[in-house]
Amino acid sequence: MMTEADRQMLTIAYEEAKKGFDEGGCPIGSVLARGGMEVSRGHNQRVQQGDPIAHGEMDALRKAGRQRTYRDTVLYTTLSPCMMCSGTIVQFGIPRVVVGENTTFGGNEDFLRAQGVEVVIADDPDCIALMERFIREKPELWAEDIAED
Amino acid sequence: MMTEADRQMLTIAYEEAKKGFDEGGCPIGSVLARGGMEVSRGHNQRVQQGDPIAHGEMDALRKAGRQRTYRDTVLYTTLSPCMMCSGTIVQFGIPRVVVGENTTFGGNEDFLRAQGVEVVIADDPDCIALMERFIREKPELWAEDIAED
Repeated sequence: MMTEADRQMLTIAYEEAKKGFDEGGCPIGSVLARGGMEVSRGHNQRVQQGDPIAHGEMDALRKAGRQRTYRDTVLYTTLSPCMMCSGTIVQFGIPRVVVGENTTFGGNEDFLRAQGVEVVIADDPDCIALMERFIREKPELWAEDIAED
Repeated sequence: MMTEADRQMLTIAYEEAKKGFDEGGCPIGSVLARGGMEVSRGHNQRVQQGDPIAHGEMDALRKAGRQRTYRDTVLYTTLSPCMMCSGTIVQFGIPRVVVGENTTFGGNEDFLRAQGVEVVIADDPDCIALMERFIREKPELWAEDIAED
């Protein structure tokens, strides 16, 4: 179930993803929010910073800095979280994740739900189109980001 | 089964952990290695950089930069990996993890093994003593790092 605040935050995450695309990186963006308000935003920095752990979600969590708790937060991401980001969501105790799309990549939704995380899939056409363009134009970079040999 | 190279790498990881302790941070260190040679070393940077995702393992992986593959690597860590770091090990396809100790923290060994990762527990007295001292002296910081409310 998507709220109006969810849509606003996911729009910011998409803008972050687009920024990453325009920088020549992997177009995946993320927002950490609390009470419908943005805490931080980030996007994948693999190319820009040469940093393999800086997926969109990780970049947003890093930029949020130290938080007393994550139990009252929501994580927004344009793309379904990989196993690194899914493990992080569970470790940090983030109770709700809103995902732009899981058409181009996915598979960890069941892991998250089994750990008690609410996962909402927005099935957003803009998120899908941006990832499809990226995978078509830069297949090697995409393979590297999801650690496919 | 620990090799001599394993012991050398774990010693470097311990030195990183000790450096983190001396800096006032969480004393957890890590080394990424390939063919018995160090690729990178790192330690937990939660306090030093205000970065909640910079666990020891994550800091070492970040410092290694972009790698073509992780299939031929070993990750050394003074402390049993949390769910964030365990998810990352699986996502990156790291096939072997050598853990200094899982007495003061643990629980994700079965998850890793179920994903095909070889997990070796060194049960190292120095690693245990350093963590016990840290947990005794800075319980709030330790609770924050493992996301306990």
